[in-house]
Amino acid sequence: MSGHATLPGGGSSGTRPRRAETIAIGTELLGPDRIDSNGAFLSRALGAHGYEVRFRTVVGDDPRELQDALRLAITRVDLVVATGGLGPTVDDLTREAAAAALHLRLEEDAALVHELEERFRRHGRPMAPSNLRQAQVPRGAEVLPNKLGTAPGLLLRTDRAILALLPGVPSEMERMTIEALLPRLDATGTRRVHRIIKIAGTNESDVDHRLAAVHKTAGKVGWTILAGAGQIEIHLTEWTTPKTKAKGIERLDAEIAAVLGDDVFGRNEDTLEEVVGRLLVSRRQTVAAAESITGGRIARRFTAVPGASNWFAGGGVVYTDGAKRVLADLDAAILESHGAVSAEAAIGLAEGIRRRLGADWGLATTGFAGPAGQKDTHPPGTVILGVAGPHGSSSRRLMLPGTRTVVQARAAQAALDLLRRELLRAAGR
Amino acid sequence: MSGHATLPGGGSSGTRPRRAETIAIGTELLGPDRIDSNGAFLSRALGAHGYEVRFRTVVGDDPRELQDALRLAITRVDLVVATGGLGPTVDDLTREAAAAALHLRLEEDAALVHELEERFRRHGRPMAPSNLRQAQVPRGAEVLPNKLGTAPGLLLRTDRAILALLPGVPSEMERMTIEALLPRLDATGTRRVHRIIKIAGTNESDVDHRLAAVHKTAGKVGWTILAGAGQIEIHLTEWTTPKTKAKGIERLDAEIAAVLGDDVFGRNEDTLEEVVGRLLVSRRQTVAAAESITGGRIARRFTAVPGASNWFAGGGVVYTDGAKRVLADLDAAILESHGAVSAEAAIGLAEGIRRRLGADWGLATTGFAGPAGQKDTHPPGTVILGVAGPHGSSSRRLMLPGTRTVVQARAAQAALDLLRRELLRAAGR
Repeated sequence: MSGHATLPGGGSSGTRPRRAETIAIGTELLGPDRIDSNGAFLSRALGAHGYEVRFRTVVGDDPRELQDALRLAITRVDLVVATGGLGPTVDDLTREAAAAALHLRLEEDAALVHELEERFRRHGRPMAPSNLRQAQVPRGAEVLPNKLGTAPGLLLRTDRAILALLPGVPSEMERMTIEALLPRLDATGTRRVHRIIKIAGTNESDVDHRLAAVHKTAGKVGWTILAGAGQIEIHLTEWTTPKTKAKGIERLDAEIAAVLGDDVFGRNEDTLEEVVGRLLVSRRQTVAAAESITGGRIARRFTAVPGASNWFAGGGVVYTDGAKRVLADLDAAILESHGAVSAEAAIGLAEGIRRRLGADWGLATTGFAGPAGQKDTHPPGTVILGVAGPHGSSSRRLMLPGTRTVVQARAAQAALDLLRRELLRAAGR
Repeated sequence: MSGHATLPGGGSSGTRPRRAETIAIGTELLGPDRIDSNGAFLSRALGAHGYEVRFRTVVGDDPRELQDALRLAITRVDLVVATGGLGPTVDDLTREAAAAALHLRLEEDAALVHELEERFRRHGRPMAPSNLRQAQVPRGAEVLPNKLGTAPGLLLRTDRAILALLPGVPSEMERMTIEALLPRLDATGTRRVHRIIKIAGTNESDVDHRLAAVHKTAGKVGWTILAGAGQIEIHLTEWTTPKTKAKGIERLDAEIAAVLGDDVFGRNEDTLEEVVGRLLVSRRQTVAAAESITGGRIARRFTAVPGASNWFAGGGVVYTDGAKRVLADLDAAILESHGAVSAEAAIGLAEGIRRRLGADWGLATTGFAGPAGQKDTHPPGTVILGVAGPHGSSSRRLMLPGTRTVVQARAAQAALDLLRRELLRAAGR
C-alpha cells in the first residue's frame, strides 16, 4: 500500500453503519480495457447515508456466476447495489439472475410496457420486441424510474437485505441513486463525512513526519494520505449522525492547517489553478505563461477554469529556441551564454511574456523532461522555473523524478505553486 | 452498457482458458478515493497466458471477511491472484487470512529474515520488529522475490487451485507478476490476443452502422466498441494457442480498415499526436499552433511525444483578443468585422502562427467552450478550426457536445485529426 488507512470506527453516537456491497455486472468490465468506475461514486453516496461498502465485486454476463454473486451478497451485507445488465440484449441477465437468486417469478409490468412504447413513439423509432425484456420485473419488485435512459431500475427486499438493480451507464446510475434509491433507504442514524486537505510544494514523507503527532490523535477519524504528481492529499473520514457536526474532522483540519501553513492550498474539489485564479481575481491582476518543459500544461490548466480570460492573459509554448525568441522576446545573448535551461533564460522568458502580453505576472518553465538530457550538468528531470511580478523576478531550480510526462506534470504543478506563494507573499507586503 | 461485448468463446484449437479471480485487499480501496487499478493489468497479463478473469473482488482489512473471500475464490476458479495486505503493519492481514483459509500454519522463513535484515542494513536503517511479520510464511508456500520493495510474494497450491499473494503497489505487483508468477503457471495451451483499432473524425453510431456487416462475421472474436472524447476504439480479443496467429483478428482488422479508410488513425498504443508527429517527420515538416478554445491542449499533447522539438515549432495560447494579435499576428480588422469566433479569425491565426514561427503548417482553434456562449449565433460547443499549409488555408466549423473541459478536449482531438487528414491529402498530390 502506498498510503495508510485507518479503519473507520463506529459512529460517535454509538450507532453503527450498515453494511453494503456493490456488484458491477458485465463481461467487458473484467477485461483489460475497462474498470468499474461506479464503485467510487457509490461508496461516497452510500457512506453519506450510513451504509459502508464492505465488498466490491465485478462479475461477467454469465447467468450462473451472476446468480451466485447476487445470492452470496444478500447473505453477507444489508444492502446490495448491482449495476449493469439491465439493457434489452440477451447479454443483459441481471433481471433473470436476481429473480432466480431470490426465488421470484418474472412478470411483465404493464406500466413499464406502456412507458417503453411511449418513449419509442416520442423518438419516432419502432420498438424492437427485445425491448420488452426491460418490462420484465421480479414479482414484488419496486420499479425505479430512469429519467435518462430506457432501462428502469428495480428494488427488491428480502428478510434481511435490500437488493437494488441500477443501470451501468454512470450518468443514469448516479441520477437514479440520488433521486430514487437513497430516498427509499431507511434512515440509519449515521453518515460518513469526508474531507480532502490538499497540499503542494512538499513531499509525502515530509508531510508524514510533520503531522506524526497530529495523526496520533486521529482516533476514530479515518486518515489516508495519497500522493500524486506534486500534490499530497490527506483524506479524512468520520462517521457521525446526520445532525451532528464532524467534530473530529474540524479539529484535525485546524491542527493540520496550523502545522503545514501555506503548504495547504485547498480542500475537497479545489484545484491549484482555481486557487491561483481566485488570488489573481481578488487582486485584479493577470498572468501570462511562457512554457518550455511544460509545453502547454500550465495554459491548459488555467483555461480549464471557467472565466479564466479575466486573469489569464495568454501564453507561449516555447519549446524551441526560435519560439523562445519570437514569442517571449528572449534575448539571443542569454541563449548563447547561459543556454535555454538556465536561471537567466527562465527569468528572461517570464519577463518577456509578461511584457509582451501586458500582464502583471509572468510565469516560465524550462528544463529537460527526458528521455534525453544534457550530459551530467542537466540530467532529465532538471527543471528551472521563473516568475516575474510587480516587485521583481526570481527563479527556482528543481530535480524532479519520473518519466517524461510525469516530469512535465510535476513541473507544471511546481510552477503553479510557485506563483501561488509569490501571490501570497506579495499580499503580505 | 455504453459498449457492446461479445463473450469470447473457447480457443480455436478447442482448448479452453482456465478461470481466474483477482482480489484487491485494503479498506482504502473500498472508499470513494481509490479504485483497484491492478485488476486491468492482471486481466491482460493473465489473459495472455490462458487465464481468463471471471471475478474481481475488493475486500477490506477485516480478517473474517478477507478469509471468506479467499476461501470462496479458491473453490470457484483455477487461479486466485490477491494483491495487497502483505506489508509490515497490523492492518496487513493477507498472510494470516490465506493460512487460515487453507488450514496451514504460519512459520518464520529463515531466508526471508536474513534478506530483510540485509536490506535494512544496506539502507542504513534499523529494522522495526514488526518487519519480521513479512517473514511469516504459510507452510509449503513458495516465496516470490520482490525486487522493488520489502514485501515478498507467496504462491500456494491446493488440490484444485493456485493462490498467489502479491504486493498492492502497482510497480511491485507488475514486476512480480511478469518475472515470478507467470513463469510458474502451467502452460495452458491458450492465450488471449488483444488488438485496439483507433478511429477519429466520426462518431460511435456511424462506426456501428458502417461496420454492421463486418461485426456479424466476428464469430468467436470478442468485439467491444469504446467511445471517448472524439475517439472511437474497437477492441478485438481472440483466444488462440501460444504458437498460432490470431487469424480472426487479422481478418477483421483488414476488413475494418477497408471499410473505414482514413478514419482509422492507429492501433494499440498509438496516439493521434504521435501519428501526426510521424507524418511530419517523414515529410521533414513542422507545425505551429495558435490555441484559443483548446488553451494549450494541442501543445501539451505534441510535447508529450519524445523528440517533439523536431517537428513542433511552438505555439501561442491566444485566449484573449490581445494575445491573438500579439502572439499570432491576427489582424485587428478581422476581430472587428468577424469576431474572434469566425472562420476568418481561425484562418488568420493559423496563418499568423505559421508565419511567425516559420513552420510548414499552422493549426488554430477558436470557439466557445462554455458555460457561457454568445447569444444564439454561437452557443457553447461552437468550435472553429483553421489550418494553414504549403498549399493554402481552410477552416472547419463544428458543434461539439459536453461540458467545458469535454468541449476543449474534443476540439483538440478534432484539430489534430484535421491536420492528420491534411497531411495525408498533401502527400497524395
